Amino acid sequence: MHVFVINPNSTASMTDTAVESARRVAGPLTVIEGATGIGSPASIEGFSDEALSVPSMLAQIRMAEAGGAQATVIACFDDPGLDAAREIASGPVIGICQAGVQAAMVLAKRFSIVTTLPRSVPAIEDLVHRYGASQHCRRVRCIDLPVLALETETQHAFSLLVAEIERARDEDGAEAVVLGCAGMSEMTDDLTKATGVVVIDGVIIATKMAEALIGSGLRTSKANAYGFPRIKD
Amino acid sequence: MHVFVINPNSTASMTDTAVESARRVAGPLTVIEGATGIGSPASIEGFSDEALSVPSMLAQIRMAEAGGAQATVIACFDDPGLDAAREIASGPVIGICQAGVQAAMVLAKRFSIVTTLPRSVPAIEDLVHRYGASQHCRRVRCIDLPVLALETETQHAFSLLVAEIERARDEDGAEAVVLGCAGMSEMTDDLTKATGVVVIDGVIIATKMAEALIGSGLRTSKANAYGFPRIKD
Amino acid sequence: MHVFVINPNSTASMTDTAVESARRVAGPLTVIEGATGIGSPASIEGFSDEALSVPSMLAQIRMAEAGGAQATVIACFDDPGLDAAREIASGPVIGICQAGVQAAMVLAKRFSIVTTLPRSVPAIEDLVHRYGASQHCRRVRCIDLPVLALETETQHAFSLLVAEIERARDEDGAEAVVLGCAGMSEMTDDLTKATGVVVIDGVIIATKMAEALIGSGLRTSKANAYGFPRIKD
Amino acid sequence: MHVFVINPNSTASMTDTAVESARRVAGPLTVIEGATGIGSPASIEGFSDEALSVPSMLAQIRMAEAGGAQATVIACFDDPGLDAAREIASGPVIGICQAGVQAAMVLAKRFSIVTTLPRSVPAIEDLVHRYGASQHCRRVRCIDLPVLALETETQHAFSLLVAEIERARDEDGAEAVVLGCAGMSEMTDDLTKATGVVVIDGVIIATKMAEALIGSGLRTSKANAYGFPRIKD
Amino acid sequence: MHVFVINPNSTASMTDTAVESARRVAGPLTVIEGATGIGSPASIEGFSDEALSVPSMLAQIRMAEAGGAQATVIACFDDPGLDAAREIASGPVIGICQAGVQAAMVLAKRFSIVTTLPRSVPAIEDLVHRYGASQHCRRVRCIDLPVLALETETQHAFSLLVAEIERARDEDGAEAVVLGCAGMSEMTDDLTKATGVVVIDGVIIATKMAEALIGSGLRTSKANAYGFPRIKD
Amino acid sequence: MHVFVINPNSTASMTDTAVESARRVAGPLTVIEGATGIGSPASIEGFSDEALSVPSMLAQIRMAEAGGAQATVIACFDDPGLDAAREIASGPVIGICQAGVQAAMVLAKRFSIVTTLPRSVPAIEDLVHRYGASQHCRRVRCIDLPVLALETETQHAFSLLVAEIERARDEDGAEAVVLGCAGMSEMTDDLTKATGVVVIDGVIIATKMAEALIGSGLRTSKANAYGFPRIKD
Repeated sequence: MHVFVINPNSTASMTDTAVESARRVAGPLTVIEGATGIGSPASIEGFSDEALSVPSMLAQIRMAEAGGAQATVIACFDDPGLDAAREIASGPVIGICQAGVQAAMVLAKRFSIVTTLPRSVPAIEDLVHRYGASQHCRRVRCIDLPVLALETETQHAFSLLVAEIERARDEDGAEAVVLGCAGMSEMTDDLTKATGVVVIDGVIIATKMAEALIGSGLRTSKANAYGFPRIKD
Repeated sequence: MHVFVINPNSTASMTDTAVESARRVAGPLTVIEGATGIGSPASIEGFSDEALSVPSMLAQIRMAEAGGAQATVIACFDDPGLDAAREIASGPVIGICQAGVQAAMVLAKRFSIVTTLPRSVPAIEDLVHRYGASQHCRRVRCIDLPVLALETETQHAFSLLVAEIERARDEDGAEAVVLGCAGMSEMTDDLTKATGVVVIDGVIIATKMAEALIGSGLRTSKANAYGFPRIKD
Repeated sequence: MHVFVINPNSTASMTDTAVESARRVAGPLTVIEGATGIGSPASIEGFSDEALSVPSMLAQIRMAEAGGAQATVIACFDDPGLDAAREIASGPVIGICQAGVQAAMVLAKRFSIVTTLPRSVPAIEDLVHRYGASQHCRRVRCIDLPVLALETETQHAFSLLVAEIERARDEDGAEAVVLGCAGMSEMTDDLTKATGVVVIDGVIIATKMAEALIGSGLRTSKANAYGFPRIKD
Repeated sequence: MHVFVINPNSTASMTDTAVESARRVAGPLTVIEGATGIGSPASIEGFSDEALSVPSMLAQIRMAEAGGAQATVIACFDDPGLDAAREIASGPVIGICQAGVQAAMVLAKRFSIVTTLPRSVPAIEDLVHRYGASQHCRRVRCIDLPVLALETETQHAFSLLVAEIERARDEDGAEAVVLGCAGMSEMTDDLTKATGVVVIDGVIIATKMAEALIGSGLRTSKANAYGFPRIKD
Repeated sequence: MHVFVINPNSTASMTDTAVESARRVAGPLTVIEGATGIGSPASIEGFSDEALSVPSMLAQIRMAEAGGAQATVIACFDDPGLDAAREIASGPVIGICQAGVQAAMVLAKRFSIVTTLPRSVPAIEDLVHRYGASQHCRRVRCIDLPVLALETETQHAFSLLVAEIERARDEDGAEAVVLGCAGMSEMTDDLTKATGVVVIDGVIIATKMAEALIGSGLRTSKANAYGFPRIKD
Repeated sequence: MHVFVINPNSTASMTDTAVESARRVAGPLTVIEGATGIGSPASIEGFSDEALSVPSMLAQIRMAEAGGAQATVIACFDDPGLDAAREIASGPVIGICQAGVQAAMVLAKRFSIVTTLPRSVPAIEDLVHRYGASQHCRRVRCIDLPVLALETETQHAFSLLVAEIERARDEDGAEAVVLGCAGMSEMTDDLTKATGVVVIDGVIIATKMAEALIGSGLRTSKANAYGFPRIKD
């Protein structure tokens, strides 16, 4: 299998993190092809960051599919351009927020999400609502740290995440926690160990769901809303 | 007052239509500044068309505000990039779908929407849901004609619209109809006359809402989710 | 333009406040006609106060329209008799709660409302739900002061409002605050200055929306639910 | 027990119908006290009819409680003034729409409602939504006949009701039908026999629920939203 | 009348409590027949306890109806097997959670629920959602005590309940509280007295609703979803 | 990997169908262990069939986990006992309805479901609602054929399915169709070919999701609602 993992922002080290996570869990015959956003913001921390990262991402997905990719994982928790990507792709396109939320609905009755900045909280709440998980999601929390600090201040970020996950468990009654940023992916195991909470990372589960959909022979429906873009005269 | 009307697609004649509609209803002291998308698709007929039109639109809004624009109207019924635009703008940003839907909730108990292509129906349904109008919106309908045909086959489009509006009234019990494409704006009066139905055009009402918000001294909240984009190091 | 601002309660000084707010923001050619409820409670602080104020309000709206009023603003945050008023009116009828909530959905991702008495909280929550804004409204708060105290203990009320708006910002993550009583209208600017929060007053925005709807040539749909009352034999 | 059945409209023969239905099902020791609206419209066919009937209804409920009534049934399917009545009453106040809908949720997975005029359809849909039954209610239908025609053209109305109930069963998959007007109450048994469908009449079930709540020793909570109206200085 | 009160768990003393409550409020001519689950868990404290109690409960309901029972009350707040019971029964089947929630929606604008163990909180939240009461239910709370401790540590449980009901009133603004376990039934009056809050017990109100539905001549619809189970070849 | 596929009904040939489907898509190292319900109904066609199949299913899952199973697929589209199964299991438990619906939300904007009997329609609608997919699911349809007829009248069933899937596409605008019964699993490919529609089979995708969750190192959260059943004294 051939899964394309696109990090829509332009920070290559974050792509490395995501690709590593994906490779760690992928099947032995799965090729994980990673890519970094071109000309997009260094991190996605708001709606305009999202918007600016999508056009090049779409082009990259098209190229990856031309090169054999059978499914795409968008490795950013805001699921930027998810609908647009499904429109231009033939294979399944999986957003890590939707994948994380769907897994959480299977593994727990109630979960919380922990993201980076306060400004991302309402955006993620709206995604949760759109994915039909409002009844299951106790709260979207944040550690009030910029995305890139996950790399530059890893130890500090880790401590904040541990504290916030424990708050989710104790104050929200969260039975599982979804990590709200692709950059947290490599900490998943350590966070699980440190807190004893079921911690769900979107990159990991999205990669496995990509394999699952490929293995089921399923592709994006081209029937109507996700049909290929119309060619204008 | 200075209202910026941005048509996110690259078809200048559609901008003309929108600007004309806006000018027809704007107050005598209001300047309507129109602009056409640069390098964007000729029409917005799906999620990737939306995505490709947003980055240049954001730049244009920034420039318009620098030039004195006090509010922005996005003249495309998919409300592309609405959240992103609010993030980069200081003044209010109004999407014609949200404006049309809000007006419909004030003027009628139940309304339907008539758009162009079938593929746009689910996208608009999701917007209606997001704007909290699912209980009020009977149905999103379409005339199965591409956006640009509104200009090239105006008479045919008009007949289809009359028939679909009457179907909305008779089959859905719609008490008002919102036009689901900026390109239908100039037909509003004639559709009202031909059908006797309250027909709401998003460009018109969005322009007036822009004036209303400016006149109320209200601006986009910069507090959190719509705060200006963070500058990355 | 001719906008009718009806204060459904019988306290004339509250009408003055509302009319003043409306006039401050109305266009130069707009006539603001105010009226005070006749035989209705001195303030609207619950469902029966609402109910007792509606019949005379309906008669007043009918008379105002006969006298040339083109749109009506109901200047009470419970939006009493809103559906009934739309039924008997030809022009648009705007409730200040619905107007405030709609503006808040345009200007901010998340907002809170601050009203007077605790007993009004569930009523306003239900309005927010009915207007489709539950996902956007963080919380309905109150200062635990009767409506008329806004006039008799203005300074005290102002301090409580400042404190509650700041709590909305800090505890709820509210990016804007809607004032939950027409009697708070004249404090809007001072509350904005004192807190730095985007404060939305329903009277102001409803007046501007009334102008916007008149200017758009839109009237209440008389097709079905808001059709004029049937004459019984 | 003493149950007060108030018909908010001013047509005494409709009160008779409701009282007769209530008496037919009430316990042997229950006193059913009926009353007809004073100065209210001859029938409730819209929001302003509702509004005009509420103030006198509230006074009548107060008087009935002073005379010993332990619970109140509002015998109009629009549940006019339900919240206001609960505010001024000590005993439970039951709307026949809410009672009918609650019973339908217990007796069937999916139900439809059949009312009189098309204009009442959206109003009842909104009640269904407010009572939390949207997922259970397939459709609100109507026979397109004014309320008073139920009395003047009883046979015609009956035929239309039979046909519409059968359509609800066949087209909607309705497993039960709630009658959407108090004036249909006396036809309940015959409609059940004619169609074989479980037909639920709000007057009947509301009367029994009134007895049930009295018998449980339960009264309206006076704690906050339904607390007695505040006395203004 | 003949009402069957089935306690699905196997603890006979809890059946006694429920039957006693039911008899205290039942009409003078109503026979309350109680039964205890056979081979089921000693208490229902989770989804598998529920599942294990349903098959024998269904058999018992069938037998009770064969013996003349006209309605069934399931005396466990998780409403275990409610849909299945309705399918095999002819008479109405009432769950004490649904009954309690429906009564609370009639008697108060906002209510909270107090149950036993934390693990039951999400399950009850989901029931509240399914019964359409999410907008009315402030919070599902618990006293963190196993079900059977209500009998073995009655005094301790009572103190915890008083404290939690007061917290619901003070922190949630709950205007009524529904008791979230059949085993709390006999404390209802004392809890009401101790707290001054409207306390609603599901066993009591469900019993009265059973009488109400029998008295209305209503039975479970056998039309589709609640039709008798199909006999397989 | 070791995936346990439990068919909760007692028809072994249906287990064979499900196991075959699972094996066809499972990874080369995955062991698919199938099991048939013991003492349960021959098919699950309603709520009591569900209820009667759950207790033995729970025991079988416990045994399978003791025997090394790492995840469980419940191969019945009603997802019977899903919550209970998650409570007693350590590994993830996947219902084929939830899995099918989650996949459909990834692959299409709008989907419909086609099941067997009309009586299953409301039950599945409620599952769709509970899984947060109401906005995405156009309609739950049925072919009005008992479950076992899928085996005894395969050709007839196939024709009906083709016709109903095409109706879903043409009348509902469904962009994908989820098969609403485990017994349809083996027809998936042929239905896809015959209709050109994206047809999603729950057994297939649930099996792959089971592998995905195992491969992600994720297990059911034992923290609260899905904690192991409490041992009673």
